[in-house]
Amino acid sequence: MIIPRRVCQIRPGRVILSGIQPTGIPHLGNYLGALSNWVKLQKSAEPEDKLLFSIVGWHALTLPQDPASLLAARNDMLAVLLAIGIDPNRSILFHQDHNPHHTELSWILSCIAPMGKLRRMTTWKSRLAAARNSSSEDEVDESMLNAGLFMYPVLQAADVLVYKATHVPVGDDQQQHIELTRDLADIFNRTFKGTSPLFPLPTYVNTPSKRILSLKDPTSKMSKSSPDVQSRILLTDIASQIQSKIRAAVTDSIQGITYDPQGRPGTSNLLTILAACTDSDVTQVAKAYESQGHGTLKRDVAEAVEEFLKGPRAQFNRIRHETTYLEEVARRGAIRAIEHSEVTMMEVKTRLGLA
Amino acid sequence: MIIPRRVCQIRPGRVILSGIQPTGIPHLGNYLGALSNWVKLQKSAEPEDKLLFSIVGWHALTLPQDPASLLAARNDMLAVLLAIGIDPNRSILFHQDHNPHHTELSWILSCIAPMGKLRRMTTWKSRLAAARNSSSEDEVDESMLNAGLFMYPVLQAADVLVYKATHVPVGDDQQQHIELTRDLADIFNRTFKGTSPLFPLPTYVNTPSKRILSLKDPTSKMSKSSPDVQSRILLTDIASQIQSKIRAAVTDSIQGITYDPQGRPGTSNLLTILAACTDSDVTQVAKAYESQGHGTLKRDVAEAVEEFLKGPRAQFNRIRHETTYLEEVARRGAIRAIEHSEVTMMEVKTRLGLA
Repeated sequence: MIIPRRVCQIRPGRVILSGIQPTGIPHLGNYLGALSNWVKLQKSAEPEDKLLFSIVGWHALTLPQDPASLLAARNDMLAVLLAIGIDPNRSILFHQDHNPHHTELSWILSCIAPMGKLRRMTTWKSRLAAARNSSSEDEVDESMLNAGLFMYPVLQAADVLVYKATHVPVGDDQQQHIELTRDLADIFNRTFKGTSPLFPLPTYVNTPSKRILSLKDPTSKMSKSSPDVQSRILLTDIASQIQSKIRAAVTDSIQGITYDPQGRPGTSNLLTILAACTDSDVTQVAKAYESQGHGTLKRDVAEAVEEFLKGPRAQFNRIRHETTYLEEVARRGAIRAIEHSEVTMMEVKTRLGLA
Repeated sequence: MIIPRRVCQIRPGRVILSGIQPTGIPHLGNYLGALSNWVKLQKSAEPEDKLLFSIVGWHALTLPQDPASLLAARNDMLAVLLAIGIDPNRSILFHQDHNPHHTELSWILSCIAPMGKLRRMTTWKSRLAAARNSSSEDEVDESMLNAGLFMYPVLQAADVLVYKATHVPVGDDQQQHIELTRDLADIFNRTFKGTSPLFPLPTYVNTPSKRILSLKDPTSKMSKSSPDVQSRILLTDIASQIQSKIRAAVTDSIQGITYDPQGRPGTSNLLTILAACTDSDVTQVAKAYESQGHGTLKRDVAEAVEEFLKGPRAQFNRIRHETTYLEEVARRGAIRAIEHSEVTMMEVKTRLGLA
């Protein structure tokens, strides 16, 4: 992934920020999506770039959570990020809820955020639709939904602006939220003028991620919430589990292997996984297997997945129980994050007349 | 004002919390309202009671503010509270925005606050009506209003609950917000059960305050926002200003003095002021003046107001410019407030699964 650099920039380096919810052990789809992009981003960044990766616990509260599971999931996610190669010395890796400036700036931004803009967020509108299990997004009663869901994009804007982030790699569904972030930054800059605009307008960075499908229903995405555990491979799965899940993956009875996501979703999904795990081009991989059967493909996919996961898995299993180390990483991350955001907050408070 | 004590209480003393917006130098109506109630409350409190008085800067941001004026108003309000007798050793006197736990708990509560409940708040509904300059509260477009106005009662609930306040003296118009605070406390207690309910349900304490009317238009309240500065007496007004404003106060041409708020609002307002400033009963005061003219009454009112204000005014003029002292009071207040709220926040985060 290449993030375009502006020719003329005030700051010497980019400030790249991204967040992930504490959803626990990721599956292969998560790993090959946002998570591996973070690692690539860290590798490709210039020395003067700042990288901030946040586990966004405040956002998780907008949906019902089991407290014990949430607590475990927070530590799981931190351990996973370390296991896959996020370097806490290079990047600022932290829990959002360890830095009080996020909710402070969120409140401030809520005071300049027009209700109409929030109401138009598609994530909010789809929540409304889902709330009634309705296919239409109109005429859905919002009264039972919690206000946190409604305010979610404002907190997300605060997550970004509190570090004066310039580049925000997020999924397609979050593009509108980055637009809102730019809007709120712009309203703030115009309302509270100083010698120069306080917030840079952050750039949305599209992170093309592999779309990994369910092993059991290759018409839908691999998902943590599917009741069938055979439909997904977890980062913690051991070789025999990987083998049995891949062997049982739904394919088709067509002879030979071709990459045809529409016509042969199961087979194509296996090719996508194989290409991603071996860092190859999927059409070339398909070519190499054109005269093979599904048995050979599955064996090689299982091997490639095992090869791909065994390093991070071993790291995860080692790190996950090093409670003191995890606490120390989180503590240092919070301190470094706060060091950055408190500069912004002092400027913000001064412009508002609060300091 | 007497706050009824529950016969059986878990906590040894009451936790009394109230907040005021940083609106700058108060007028006589403000002083004889909430402010003097705070001082009475401090005097009448038992040694085991905790008192917290907060200058709520976050709330002020929901309306447009001039930053320089807001900054001055914050210091004015702090100096006023000290000048009228709030003792920073007895009470915890602090700026809301110096304690990050308010916005943190506000976010948490927003995630359990149903949109419908917030939409039903009459203060929100009246904002909607005012936004369109409409007399009807229906069919008013909310899209241009800021989300902070909508979330205001949630932050207010956090202000109260973060200290586990048991008693909240506020004006009539805030009673519904205290009901919401109890609702949110109850939802939290039921959703995140522990060995015992985390939040006490705070009691709304009606603080009967003198309704002081405009000296120029005694059909409306004395108001900071009236364009006619002769309509109000400020805490900082000197004796000659007080005399000239009272002398020019609108009364009537009826012979003799009687207390008749409906029929003789201007005259009755002067009697109310006289009674309040001399801590007397208004009907007895009226009786004493029944055969006097307005000239005599006004002279005595001006004297009583001067007598009432001169102490606080002198104190204010002394304290207002002691910048280091004000900063130290604010700093100590914040530290003491945070000491209290961080105990609550640790319990809250533990129940949520964030710690």
